[in-house]
Amino acid sequence: MRTWRRSFSTSIIRYSQSSALGSCNRLRCAELLNVSSEKDKAREFENENVTLKGFIRSVRKQKRFAFAEISDGSTVQSLQAILTPDQAADLSTGAAIEISGIWKACPPGKEQTHELQTTTIQVVGDADPETYPIQKKYHSSDFLRQIPHLRLRTPFNSLLSRFRSECIYQLGQVFRSHPHGGFTQVQPPLITSSDCEGAGETFTLSPESSALPAPGEEVEHFFRSPKYLTVSSQLHLEAYAAELGNVWTLSPTFRAEKSDTPRHLSEFYMLEAEVNFANELSSLLDLVEYLIRDLARRLHDTPVGQEILSAKRSGEPGLDTVDFNEALRRRWDVLLSGPEWPRITYTRAIEMLQDAVTNHGASFTHQPSWSEGLQLEHEKYIVDTLFHGVPVFVTDYPQKVKPFYMAPSPSAEGGATVACFDLLFPEICEVVGGSLREHRLPALIDKMRKYGLIKQRRRHSTQYSATSQQQLDDEGGSEYPYLEPGEDLGHLQWYADLRRWGSAPHGGFGLGFDRLIGYLAGVSSLRDVVPFPRYFKRADC
Amino acid sequence: MRTWRRSFSTSIIRYSQSSALGSCNRLRCAELLNVSSEKDKAREFENENVTLKGFIRSVRKQKRFAFAEISDGSTVQSLQAILTPDQAADLSTGAAIEISGIWKACPPGKEQTHELQTTTIQVVGDADPETYPIQKKYHSSDFLRQIPHLRLRTPFNSLLSRFRSECIYQLGQVFRSHPHGGFTQVQPPLITSSDCEGAGETFTLSPESSALPAPGEEVEHFFRSPKYLTVSSQLHLEAYAAELGNVWTLSPTFRAEKSDTPRHLSEFYMLEAEVNFANELSSLLDLVEYLIRDLARRLHDTPVGQEILSAKRSGEPGLDTVDFNEALRRRWDVLLSGPEWPRITYTRAIEMLQDAVTNHGASFTHQPSWSEGLQLEHEKYIVDTLFHGVPVFVTDYPQKVKPFYMAPSPSAEGGATVACFDLLFPEICEVVGGSLREHRLPALIDKMRKYGLIKQRRRHSTQYSATSQQQLDDEGGSEYPYLEPGEDLGHLQWYADLRRWGSAPHGGFGLGFDRLIGYLAGVSSLRDVVPFPRYFKRADC
Repeated sequence: MRTWRRSFSTSIIRYSQSSALGSCNRLRCAELLNVSSEKDKAREFENENVTLKGFIRSVRKQKRFAFAEISDGSTVQSLQAILTPDQAADLSTGAAIEISGIWKACPPGKEQTHELQTTTIQVVGDADPETYPIQKKYHSSDFLRQIPHLRLRTPFNSLLSRFRSECIYQLGQVFRSHPHGGFTQVQPPLITSSDCEGAGETFTLSPESSALPAPGEEVEHFFRSPKYLTVSSQLHLEAYAAELGNVWTLSPTFRAEKSDTPRHLSEFYMLEAEVNFANELSSLLDLVEYLIRDLARRLHDTPVGQEILSAKRSGEPGLDTVDFNEALRRRWDVLLSGPEWPRITYTRAIEMLQDAVTNHGASFTHQPSWSEGLQLEHEKYIVDTLFHGVPVFVTDYPQKVKPFYMAPSPSAEGGATVACFDLLFPEICEVVGGSLREHRLPALIDKMRKYGLIKQRRRHSTQYSATSQQQLDDEGGSEYPYLEPGEDLGHLQWYADLRRWGSAPHGGFGLGFDRLIGYLAGVSSLRDVVPFPRYFKRADC
Repeated sequence: MRTWRRSFSTSIIRYSQSSALGSCNRLRCAELLNVSSEKDKAREFENENVTLKGFIRSVRKQKRFAFAEISDGSTVQSLQAILTPDQAADLSTGAAIEISGIWKACPPGKEQTHELQTTTIQVVGDADPETYPIQKKYHSSDFLRQIPHLRLRTPFNSLLSRFRSECIYQLGQVFRSHPHGGFTQVQPPLITSSDCEGAGETFTLSPESSALPAPGEEVEHFFRSPKYLTVSSQLHLEAYAAELGNVWTLSPTFRAEKSDTPRHLSEFYMLEAEVNFANELSSLLDLVEYLIRDLARRLHDTPVGQEILSAKRSGEPGLDTVDFNEALRRRWDVLLSGPEWPRITYTRAIEMLQDAVTNHGASFTHQPSWSEGLQLEHEKYIVDTLFHGVPVFVTDYPQKVKPFYMAPSPSAEGGATVACFDLLFPEICEVVGGSLREHRLPALIDKMRKYGLIKQRRRHSTQYSATSQQQLDDEGGSEYPYLEPGEDLGHLQWYADLRRWGSAPHGGFGLGFDRLIGYLAGVSSLRDVVPFPRYFKRADC
């Protein structure tokens, strides 16, 4: 550790209180550069002694002076400090420093209004420029992805973390100020018994110390029966909503998908909400549109939102920052003030796609077909071409391409379609999916049977479901309603129970939070949106 | 579904907008009972038509009238509706209803100022009183724990969920308005390579479909190497803090502990924060005390905080609600306005305990001994007896009872103690633990070696660490500093990297969020604090 001291020591500056020296004001770059505050702190501290703790982004050494760009993670902008050659002698990119000086106005015409005339600088952690991977130059996304723990130190990735933080905070405001109020934020469990989507791509859990069982030996489970990492909190949200009315969560979800696309991660955050007493799908669509627009409006009015909209992009070859930011601003404008997002049924969407093939020369790898569902290429065509880049709700998909718990469309004959929707965004396509839930017990049990989710009861079961069944049998003196003899709802009995007593029509949705952040920030790969991404074959750090 | 209709139908009331009928105002119980709002809505809607959607908590049928207690999850209070015997004929506890009526002032002297004179009531989901487990009577915690999905429907558990929601929201305010500002909320990964505490009690992950390997066959890992569920986000927070300065997270953590105590769960939320440029342990203690007190102050000023402080307890035999709530209020007072929390070193604490044994007749199962650490019984004695129920910080524990990453105490000779602390609360004991981190690379590597965390390098490793090592070797042309030949930092190399370039003194802490909620709410078992608790042998629903 090397120290230069001029007029006073920085060592007495304590984190939790102002220094005993009245002349020493610890500030952050965002404050001095007027990024974060409504007050004009740049002027307020003119000619004052100020102290900053941060990092050298770059240093330029000349004969009589040296210039250092200082950053402390509070803004993408760096703050210029002027130093003597002596003070700058051992500075290098990445070094952690504590710096004090006089905050001086620059002559007019300079890029920044003020600069720091250094009185004291102390290197508290140096960085060998020969080995430090983060230099002031363009680093490819591929390169940075290999060092996620250091990637945060690039200006844009640092900004992205602050943007996520702001999104989380503003989400709380959005739900709190919703006109209908009363959205309770909940924290549902991540260790679950069920695979909500029925996709089977879950992670299973075992205690580290558990030995592999010998062939034929029964596994002794930590939780008595196999448990998984949740793929969606929806089922639990329904339990909360049945009492609390409107609930939401921002909760991690997991998929063990062996896919290699920038659109999927194995661990990601999902914003999920559930609304009790929801009779109509359209009310859910209203809610989703309201939430996203309100979030975008709030973010737009924050310093970090403005930074995202004007940030220098990483200097990727061929990328023009001005063009890029103009496109990004147009993307936000659609959310802030664009027209209501169109709503079409799945059936209509297929017709339009087929028409596009027949009459407008569109071509797809997969021919659009009602029974096959929508492929990514179809979604892209719908939102980008048919609706010119405006978000689109597609509703009422065929039951057979959707999970068991969805309620039938009001108009559905024979349960052919369900009261559900996907919200498609330009470029990223599906960002929200939701539905009304089947809230009638007999209809739910019927569906579970069709989906093969009802088991034959085992004689000596040690699982919860059996215990509970036993208990309910003892108390109620009856079999579970609507089941055939010997049938067992297994680990989903609690879910059916929600329909057994006081079940109101309800529905909800899940929004891919990382996808939305990437969309708003103009970052196309989730592997660059999430600081420490986990996906097939990769979980660095 | 049974319907009674009087003056108008409720079926046209839509979730997302006001009804077309101007006279129909959908409200929540908390609004009409003046719990949630500063406005006097009880009076504002006097003699107006109002609509509620909720549940029957109880119904009392008399000859000429019937009285129903209505609840909708917005407050512990229920709202009284008066009905005709016809209207009430099929009502039972738990039924989901939509009810409309005139909001009438009651004559003076009645318990509530207003009641609902029902015009229309519609049962949207009935509840068979013979089988519905939640009745208006005392249910033991043991009983309710067996039906977590329905337990939420008891007034107190419903309140507890709203209290957690308020805690989450107010935490965001606390960090945002902290005088030093700039706390960034982050979402660190839950799938990790390392066991932060070195306790070995982690859950491992595998994709559900992965077959068990044949004996002798190598396991093919989804992420190339074994992965665990995080036991603490600290290591990742340090990476964030190195750039962003001050960071925090409210994030799930997991422990595969086979313990059977109400103080531990296998899945719980931890509030963790990390502060860069923190030189002194005392600054962390200041921060922790500030955060908890500020949170309590803010909660105290909310309707739900007031409800927690005055809620009727569940009617447990022998529990006097008035006494209980008075004790709970005293508990809050210590946080709101009590004296500064005392700070003693671990060494002093051991001396005081030994003195208590020798001179004051205290007796413990485990004799207090400097080298053995503090047992729960010791912590209880310190906070309850020695400090009369005021929270106590115990600092500077022996290195050997703490993890490798802690920095030595400033006064420590030979690294005997580390700059760490536990915050002990009355009754629940440890609620926060934190430390300064060893931020110097050579000292960290030295400690890792002592803790057995440095491996001998394998020739053909496919793990990240080796790839990265290779890459850094290629770029920097040198071996990793301070390692002996053949040594490998393995999956912790990224953590050491944080010290390699621009490392400032820093520290942080983790707070057991569920423990704190339980403490503030007066709920002693975590199994009753968390709606869907997971612990050894239990993960219902």
